[in-house]
Amino acid sequence: MDFPCIDRLEMRQRDLMAGPEPTYEKVVTGYELFHDSTPFVCDHGGVLPQMDVAYESWGRLNADRSNAILIHTGLSGSSHARSHAKNSRPGWWEKFIGPGLAIDTDRFFVVCTNVIGGCYGSTGPWSVNPATGQRYATTFPLLTVNDMVRAQFRLLDHLGIHKLHASVGASMGGMQSLCAAALHPERVGRLVTISACARSHPYSIALRFAQRQALMADPNFRRGFYYDGVQPHVGMKLARAVATVTYRSGPEWELRFGRRRRAPDQPPALCPDFLIETYLDHQSERFCLQYDANSLLYVSKAMDMFDISQSVTRRLAAQREHAAADLGHELATTAAACANVSVCMNIEDQPASTTGHSQAETEDEIAQDLIAGVRNAKQPTLVLGVQSDILFPVKQQREIAEILRRAGNERVTYYELDAMYGHDTFLIDVVNVGAAIKGHLENTT
Amino acid sequence: MDFPCIDRLEMRQRDLMAGPEPTYEKVVTGYELFHDSTPFVCDHGGVLPQMDVAYESWGRLNADRSNAILIHTGLSGSSHARSHAKNSRPGWWEKFIGPGLAIDTDRFFVVCTNVIGGCYGSTGPWSVNPATGQRYATTFPLLTVNDMVRAQFRLLDHLGIHKLHASVGASMGGMQSLCAAALHPERVGRLVTISACARSHPYSIALRFAQRQALMADPNFRRGFYYDGVQPHVGMKLARAVATVTYRSGPEWELRFGRRRRAPDQPPALCPDFLIETYLDHQSERFCLQYDANSLLYVSKAMDMFDISQSVTRRLAAQREHAAADLGHELATTAAACANVSVCMNIEDQPASTTGHSQAETEDEIAQDLIAGVRNAKQPTLVLGVQSDILFPVKQQREIAEILRRAGNERVTYYELDAMYGHDTFLIDVVNVGAAIKGHLENTT
Repeated sequence: MDFPCIDRLEMRQRDLMAGPEPTYEKVVTGYELFHDSTPFVCDHGGVLPQMDVAYESWGRLNADRSNAILIHTGLSGSSHARSHAKNSRPGWWEKFIGPGLAIDTDRFFVVCTNVIGGCYGSTGPWSVNPATGQRYATTFPLLTVNDMVRAQFRLLDHLGIHKLHASVGASMGGMQSLCAAALHPERVGRLVTISACARSHPYSIALRFAQRQALMADPNFRRGFYYDGVQPHVGMKLARAVATVTYRSGPEWELRFGRRRRAPDQPPALCPDFLIETYLDHQSERFCLQYDANSLLYVSKAMDMFDISQSVTRRLAAQREHAAADLGHELATTAAACANVSVCMNIEDQPASTTGHSQAETEDEIAQDLIAGVRNAKQPTLVLGVQSDILFPVKQQREIAEILRRAGNERVTYYELDAMYGHDTFLIDVVNVGAAIKGHLENTT
Repeated sequence: MDFPCIDRLEMRQRDLMAGPEPTYEKVVTGYELFHDSTPFVCDHGGVLPQMDVAYESWGRLNADRSNAILIHTGLSGSSHARSHAKNSRPGWWEKFIGPGLAIDTDRFFVVCTNVIGGCYGSTGPWSVNPATGQRYATTFPLLTVNDMVRAQFRLLDHLGIHKLHASVGASMGGMQSLCAAALHPERVGRLVTISACARSHPYSIALRFAQRQALMADPNFRRGFYYDGVQPHVGMKLARAVATVTYRSGPEWELRFGRRRRAPDQPPALCPDFLIETYLDHQSERFCLQYDANSLLYVSKAMDMFDISQSVTRRLAAQREHAAADLGHELATTAAACANVSVCMNIEDQPASTTGHSQAETEDEIAQDLIAGVRNAKQPTLVLGVQSDILFPVKQQREIAEILRRAGNERVTYYELDAMYGHDTFLIDVVNVGAAIKGHLENTT
């Protein structure tokens, strides 16, 4: 039995020991940097003494600053959603953003950021901690989706944008989008959430757990302190293979790959053999040096912890307040934490020692807690789900629409697509996904 | 950030370097061994010079030897389906087999084997190759599901059982069961197939691919030649975590674990934190030293290759004939290969160089090839699917029922369960799964 796939892993290991190191700092270029020197207090109590937010923009901000759309990325997305003069490479939403397109840059000023915790320009584990002069690695503070959103709003403050025309996102971007609309409702005019959820289901936590375990089990991971050595590329490749199965499996694979083999005249092999296997191998190989392993850990953990329930939001706000007090920035930071007064008005009633998880137990308690969590999100809303999505199944999309409606939002549109690309449909199906977004953003009735 | 899960992996690594080696040879005891010294020619041309088949049995064979039921296992199952005098540990189908139970040992003589390629007594990669005096490891020949079934029929010959009352299996066991009924119809009186498929879908291949890659990427795997050193337990643990997600995810997890955490008063962690994570960690930890890594590779690969299409069956039979001729056992083995004359009658028309994969391309060609592949399976048949199964979705169960019916089988019963345990429902839901089996096995109309 031959193992060409193992040969290749070992060869790359040798190359990496000798050669240049990770490419992810070079993957994205041509972005703008917003540097914020105000300490940023995270939901779980960690503090970033300063923060960079990488962003790109398209279109022009109008005179009354009312035409801005914020695009939120998925787990490993960069700010490069579309090509532009400083970076001509196609962006991850190239066909969705542009003049006359679904997100029309003739009408709107479109902004996309790299989330904090990421590795494409924004402050993340790969960044140097100014307090130590060393990269954060796994000393980086735990992040939540709301931390990512609050960092984005600091950027919007810097750009002079108080209220967005719309907040738009898919996958983890949909979590951010929902979070922005629910926790910062005065800043979000319209909401678009695609293939996301109101709280992560144990099944999706399980799948991300398996990915993180694959990564952390790589001997090169070294508890996150790998920046001076060989990257945990094998673990990253495994993690990505699992992720790709959850992103892309759907009827498409049956049509595209079926049971066809790479080399039908050769005997079956344990290394990639069926076309679906060579596809996964290629996809994960390409990814494994383009994204920072520590970013994968932190950002995927933030997805696991996402829960828009009111009890969770309140407890996290209380933790943040507590941490800010410790920092000696009490007044300034509490004010920021409680920008949304209605969410935080009862902070003083909450114990500060809890850790940001809902205590709701019954189905009804869970639903009521979720409904209370989105009670301020009264914006016109588009919720879009894809029937072949196994990672964020339509059941979770229906839940988002339902809790918004039960909370009193009378302008919720819910679409369910019979598309074949699974979770990644939002990246591919410009005809259906694009039209739904365009209709929602430009609707004037 | 602490990494207690990595600490534990490293500690076990150290223990294993010093301590006793794999437990899988000790997991199952008290089985019988059928030793067959006739060379066994495999579908892909490999030859086992001799072969052991481990089996256990319950109940008594009746005078005309007509009451035997063969139980086929899933991927990692042993012959220990039920406890007995020589091994009192509960078997994997303890509640399904026994006096008065679904598979009633007062009526039937029930046999279960460990598949060849496994590690629980039957010849597999862990066995010593008599030609070299060394363990096969990855010099073991590639296996197919039909190889497993043909080995089981050799055991039945030895036991003096020509025709089974029924062939019963779930998951890979359902593949074996369908294979037995379709390719050896004269030996199978009734067919039960649960949560199986007529051909593996690229999605399930992708999931098994990810597991095999995790295993092979473990530095201790050493291309399968690890028996003298530390086992690739980390890779096995990762593989099992991914597998468990595919086996058990379903509505059950939402009820059983929800979003509850191991230690709600502690801050979130990157190591197992949510209860679903500690569950997966525990499950995979328990498994990783109880099953041989090479067996996982060979048996899961056989599952990927499973395709009951006529063109595949014919090509594999031609390969087998070719290999038997090379061996100098031409007459004897060709006769065995063509025990089912109708399947093999056109062998001479088939090129011997093809490799056992269907060339059918269009949906209609695929369906016709599958229908032709099961055209001799006219037994009363029960096909059972579970709506929450993501690994072998109900679409695949409907396909089995449909091709059998279109091939002219007028006694196909198709049940679809709204059960909450996903793929593993067949191991758990004795009320519904058990009743369906019992009704089918004992029906005299």
